[in-house]
Amino acid sequence: MAKSPEEEHPTKAFGWAATDPSGALSPFKFSRRATGEKDVRFKVLYCGICHSDLHMVKNEWGSSTYPLVPGHEIVGIVTEVGSKVEKFKVGDKVGVGCMVGACHSCDSCADDLENYCPKIILTYGATYYDGTTTHGGYSDVMIAEERYVVRFPDNLPLDAGAPLLCAGITVYSPLQHFGFTKPGMHIGVVGLGGLGHVAVKFAKAFGVKVTVISTSPSKKKEATEHLGADSFLVSRDPDQMQAAMGTMDGIIDTVSAVHPLFPLIGLLKSHGKLVMVGAPDRPLELPIFPLLMGRKIVAGSCIGGMKETQEMIDFAGKHNITADVEVISIDYVNTAMERLRKADVRYRFVIDIGNTLKAA
Amino acid sequence: MAKSPEEEHPTKAFGWAATDPSGALSPFKFSRRATGEKDVRFKVLYCGICHSDLHMVKNEWGSSTYPLVPGHEIVGIVTEVGSKVEKFKVGDKVGVGCMVGACHSCDSCADDLENYCPKIILTYGATYYDGTTTHGGYSDVMIAEERYVVRFPDNLPLDAGAPLLCAGITVYSPLQHFGFTKPGMHIGVVGLGGLGHVAVKFAKAFGVKVTVISTSPSKKKEATEHLGADSFLVSRDPDQMQAAMGTMDGIIDTVSAVHPLFPLIGLLKSHGKLVMVGAPDRPLELPIFPLLMGRKIVAGSCIGGMKETQEMIDFAGKHNITADVEVISIDYVNTAMERLRKADVRYRFVIDIGNTLKAA
Repeated sequence: MAKSPEEEHPTKAFGWAATDPSGALSPFKFSRRATGEKDVRFKVLYCGICHSDLHMVKNEWGSSTYPLVPGHEIVGIVTEVGSKVEKFKVGDKVGVGCMVGACHSCDSCADDLENYCPKIILTYGATYYDGTTTHGGYSDVMIAEERYVVRFPDNLPLDAGAPLLCAGITVYSPLQHFGFTKPGMHIGVVGLGGLGHVAVKFAKAFGVKVTVISTSPSKKKEATEHLGADSFLVSRDPDQMQAAMGTMDGIIDTVSAVHPLFPLIGLLKSHGKLVMVGAPDRPLELPIFPLLMGRKIVAGSCIGGMKETQEMIDFAGKHNITADVEVISIDYVNTAMERLRKADVRYRFVIDIGNTLKAA
Repeated sequence: MAKSPEEEHPTKAFGWAATDPSGALSPFKFSRRATGEKDVRFKVLYCGICHSDLHMVKNEWGSSTYPLVPGHEIVGIVTEVGSKVEKFKVGDKVGVGCMVGACHSCDSCADDLENYCPKIILTYGATYYDGTTTHGGYSDVMIAEERYVVRFPDNLPLDAGAPLLCAGITVYSPLQHFGFTKPGMHIGVVGLGGLGHVAVKFAKAFGVKVTVISTSPSKKKEATEHLGADSFLVSRDPDQMQAAMGTMDGIIDTVSAVHPLFPLIGLLKSHGKLVMVGAPDRPLELPIFPLLMGRKIVAGSCIGGMKETQEMIDFAGKHNITADVEVISIDYVNTAMERLRKADVRYRFVIDIGNTLKAA
């Protein structure tokens, strides 16, 4: 017979879990493994709420198992390290993002792209090497293999820095990989939410010209004055879109709702690249002729490897890039989930685990 | 008042033209400009029939003007060169492909990618620098600026070589640009028609493993035994497709009918590239999640620049690559067009202009 979540491992843990597809989160006692020789154990201080947490607690992707402790933007302070850990010591500021394991023998792993490993082990709701279920950061303690832990720069605040572990790397990696980092380039960012607002900050730090493309004219001031975008396009305004045709080297599209690609492809110069980082649940319409006429590309990108995640967070530290966050107590998490569903947050909720999560 | 086609220019020319959207071709007297100082004039010997000729004579893309002399796979022997022509002399074997002009001042032109110049001048049915309409290769004489003329290797037969000027460069350029040329790679070719059969030959010459993907099981023997493909997949066979999932580095998709992209994206390895060279007239359904999960790319590609077209034809000469052609007389052209519409040709019609086109 399988052991209960509390008895499964030797280390007591406490968090909030969804127990069924209603998605309602409630206090949950479980356990974590003992700190292995390559493991880093840390006290969780903050955890961001990612839009995918919302999908997962409600089983909207069909892959959820319960009880489910969400959270993959996890930061805290190291409390114990295994005997073979080389990069971390007790007291270090660290973080864990979307993944805690992979096969380490495939081409993607060899290229430091564990995020594309077919055997990637996600931070929560997945099956770990030992056969037990992984649990995320809406909890008081976290343990992960050193390879999956990133060091936080001293100057980066832990609360506003936490969302970089998912939202940050999700936009940083394609900006780098697809070459959207050369000063003088013109890059579009579609959608101004958790991903989009961080994309604007990274792109500006790379020195490129940034245009935000949004359905909401009301976001113009925020985009240009607060976030520093160079310009703003209302995607539903045909005149504005027409005037911007053929002006962009690349576009990062963060929108996860079904939306038209044709006008976005039109914004690209010849040889331009449209990179999707949001995941609409239905196929989008792809016009082929405009792709051919300018040798244009539509690509997808999904988070980033651990080496690049460390580079991203170091870059963020150097350029003082953080997410704009609303810090909440764990008791507010169900309300926050409802607000997130309505996009009623500017731009990311972060749970103050350290100060508000109290074991029953 | 505009001059008649016969009186417009000093050089008498004779060809076959469509005069209305019925698309029926009939004998047509017109004229070509005098040989300018950078121009090459040649006697046309062969001209391939491209599928786009069929669309153009019937105005299926809405851009045709009449009378329209089609043909952009044109080969022949130089009869006159202008005073500033450096690369060609009387008697040379030459060819002209899809374009005869461009702006020569944009980024694409500067990068030898005249094919992506917004002011590209197509070989027929377009407006030339002097304001007159361009006419294609279903005609006895051709004049083009040196930049748009390619030298034919001595060993390459003119009839079977003619289709390389459009079909050949259309597949060679993406194979090169997207890096599908490294021995050991596995490349898919979707569709075994005018473009696809040449794609197989070029890909094999690069030394990659080639799999043909087709709806027609009957093409397997042809693909593997005659064209030298390493394997063959029936795209409508779910078991075959499933077994090949995640095995290809790149795919060249030559199909211009509406077809599903989802299974093709599934055939790609992580970071694989699906390159469209056919132009379906309606948008295709693009599933985003599979793009994200493997950082995959869907791209378009359209012919190639003049520098690359010369490289392609030199490569074809070195590796004895030609199209498989059915040579016809000009009197047969309307029948050939009907057969082409039904894909009843293996794989390209080429008109024997030199021996069968006689001025009335």
